[in-house]
Amino acid sequence: MSTTPSSCPLCAPPRPDLLVADLGLVTVRLNEDQFFPGYCFVVLKQHAAEPYHLTITDRTEVMEKVYLVARALEALFTPDKMNLESLGNMVPHVHWHVVPRHRTDALWPRPIWSEPHEPVKLDAASLERRVGDIRNEIVRLAASG
Amino acid sequence: MSTTPSSCPLCAPPRPDLLVADLGLVTVRLNEDQFFPGYCFVVLKQHAAEPYHLTITDRTEVMEKVYLVARALEALFTPDKMNLESLGNMVPHVHWHVVPRHRTDALWPRPIWSEPHEPVKLDAASLERRVGDIRNEIVRLAASG
Repeated sequence: MSTTPSSCPLCAPPRPDLLVADLGLVTVRLNEDQFFPGYCFVVLKQHAAEPYHLTITDRTEVMEKVYLVARALEALFTPDKMNLESLGNMVPHVHWHVVPRHRTDALWPRPIWSEPHEPVKLDAASLERRVGDIRNEIVRLAASG
Repeated sequence: MSTTPSSCPLCAPPRPDLLVADLGLVTVRLNEDQFFPGYCFVVLKQHAAEPYHLTITDRTEVMEKVYLVARALEALFTPDKMNLESLGNMVPHVHWHVVPRHRTDALWPRPIWSEPHEPVKLDAASLERRVGDIRNEIVRLAASG
């Protein structure tokens, strides 16, 4: 909780090619490492270390956005389970890991952190398509309520 | 999402000596392994695989209970960061890991899953005291709003 906004990497603007959506209090960003296909971050725009340090209105809105992203990833990637994590030991700025998990993934059923892996980076066209697909599904779900 | 309630270990009643509190839609249970002091689970009483499969009212209440437990653990254990995780790959029944983390803990700043560890089990008196301390702090915080 000692990180100041000026030195906080999550207070900086997101990389444009990874930005999935701007959703009020949060941005949605694709994890550059797509070892787990669809893996996104939901990042609070303001600086706060813990979700429960926010007002109830804000923390509820943040969580609703996390769930919206999870539902979009569920629709697109048909995971066997969704993993949701707020850690922030290295970057104490509220951000949620939203990770679709499959029985066929290399680390199943263990947590994603249980073994190191080589990052999977998409080429520019595949990255653009994936970001666009997730964005479109979020928009579709948000419109249908 | 294929686990049926009859075979789901988290649909079974909690071990009485680990039960911290019964809070409406959820129970709070101390993790028997106290390698990370204060580590609790917040377990949904009904069977559901994902928090976002619940109604907005229910999923908001569940998250408010997770935050209440986190605040109690923050007050008691003064962590450097709180880790909140909904995984469920092995037991697909909504349960949140609420884990106080310290710069001095063996795995800091990595996630708790990054290396195996020998479980730390408290003796009966210490377990009872820890469960009681967390329960009292939850009650105190809930009463103060």
